[in-house]
Amino acid sequence: MHRIDGLPTHVTIYEVGPRDGLQNESTIVPVEIKAEFVERLVDAGLTTIETTSFVHPSWVPQLADAADLLARIERRPGIHYPVLVPNDRGLDRALESGVTEIAIFGSATESFAQRNLNRTVDSQFDMFAPVVSRALEHGLRVRAYISMCFGDPWEGEVPIPQVVDVGMRLLDLGCYELSLGDTIGVGTPGHARALIEAFPCGPSQLAVHFHDTYGQALANTLEALRCGVTVVDASAGGIGGCPYAASATGNLATEDLVWMLHGLGIETGVDLDSLVATSSWLAAHLGRPSPSPVVRALSKEP
Amino acid sequence: MHRIDGLPTHVTIYEVGPRDGLQNESTIVPVEIKAEFVERLVDAGLTTIETTSFVHPSWVPQLADAADLLARIERRPGIHYPVLVPNDRGLDRALESGVTEIAIFGSATESFAQRNLNRTVDSQFDMFAPVVSRALEHGLRVRAYISMCFGDPWEGEVPIPQVVDVGMRLLDLGCYELSLGDTIGVGTPGHARALIEAFPCGPSQLAVHFHDTYGQALANTLEALRCGVTVVDASAGGIGGCPYAASATGNLATEDLVWMLHGLGIETGVDLDSLVATSSWLAAHLGRPSPSPVVRALSKEP
Repeated sequence: MHRIDGLPTHVTIYEVGPRDGLQNESTIVPVEIKAEFVERLVDAGLTTIETTSFVHPSWVPQLADAADLLARIERRPGIHYPVLVPNDRGLDRALESGVTEIAIFGSATESFAQRNLNRTVDSQFDMFAPVVSRALEHGLRVRAYISMCFGDPWEGEVPIPQVVDVGMRLLDLGCYELSLGDTIGVGTPGHARALIEAFPCGPSQLAVHFHDTYGQALANTLEALRCGVTVVDASAGGIGGCPYAASATGNLATEDLVWMLHGLGIETGVDLDSLVATSSWLAAHLGRPSPSPVVRALSKEP
Repeated sequence: MHRIDGLPTHVTIYEVGPRDGLQNESTIVPVEIKAEFVERLVDAGLTTIETTSFVHPSWVPQLADAADLLARIERRPGIHYPVLVPNDRGLDRALESGVTEIAIFGSATESFAQRNLNRTVDSQFDMFAPVVSRALEHGLRVRAYISMCFGDPWEGEVPIPQVVDVGMRLLDLGCYELSLGDTIGVGTPGHARALIEAFPCGPSQLAVHFHDTYGQALANTLEALRCGVTVVDASAGGIGGCPYAASATGNLATEDLVWMLHGLGIETGVDLDSLVATSSWLAAHLGRPSPSPVVRALSKEP
């Protein structure tokens, strides 16, 4: 264990495997396996687990069982089980399921806002405002994702002021944290630093969400930590986006992140062996090996 | 392109694909393909290419064609074509082939010295001393690799003073540069920093050689650059050590490194598209896709 001056002593891992991971896998996993997955993640020491999404089932059939899943999970004290909520109807369903934390999913670019939300960057706030307002009235915490913070497949590099503007408007609605997403994985460490430093709110309200499409996720994370960020999104086993496909947009694997953090003497509360066992177990259900190097190395699987 | 203060403006990539890469692939590549591989690497802008090894052919049948390969390569002005030389007999063969730069391969640990060299850490210098001395008499430059600088499969974490001692003795023999190898890929960025800072020679005589077995290679490289290192070993396409095997010890892919460096505004002289095309072409000859995320993303191959 070898520390680096100026890095945080503790990092909170915001685990996205059950939602962002399974949403982007071609295999639809049975609800009882999902419930066991979430329980095993908690057993492995993760304390924040984005559990599912209340998008319309026809858009994301992988997560159509959101209410059923939440009914099966024993919600343990001190563990956070946020769910993604796209709109008012999604919030209704989340409230019916007794959810206490939600996340909304905004876009930094016009192209993606149009394709993903069928709205402009500007008009997405008309959709989010009543959701966040009503969620806060019910005492929920609301996190905001911003997608396409670094590059956009249609627009190329995304101007930093544009991302900051979207982010600050989301904070103004009452969100407690912004997760800065490199949805297509093109960002490099200097870009991560420049973006984080451009936010007037400071790093305490920022999380980072890197995809490993170009192998940059962990280097970018290291730089984000150096900028004072202490919340990092990751997906157990690196699930979400097949690494062998041309459109590979896999999440940073939680195991690869934990290996680096523990090597740096940064606490996470995670038991790595237990997490690797969980990802190996899930990989069998997904029918493909984990793309995480740490999972492959420690599970000694082919 | 987003710079970070304190990083170098130029990095020299020491390309190890033809030697360290092909040596660790199960497929034996025909000599004419190897020659074309080296020529294509030069065309892509790489200026230092470890071309082959004069180990005994029965140890490494993949590189048994060393003399034949060197006879086929047009050695262009300004391009460095070092070769690995394990002993006196290897040096004879290298000199016969008109080689002007060699590399020797030492071990930081007793276990690996015994297994790889059949010597103790101490007695390896008895083997290296006459080789280096004679090479210098012939006007050759000599680089020294140190393997197992971070962890060792039999001994666990390797004490930093032990690595520094081996390294300084190799420099004392007359080597111009040490390549610090994380042979099993377990190192993390703070460990890289601590090791680099422990060398009394300073970073100008150090290169880093990370394997991506645990996904840490690029984050470690970023930290090494911040410590002042400006020479980084990498393997085109990430060849060398199948990433799907339990014993995966793949080299950092040159493409993944170049993506980060160029994103940071650090010059390498490499044309990334040309390099990706080369790695895709070689992957067809190796019969498996490149493990490099950048190669996969940019070549749009499955």
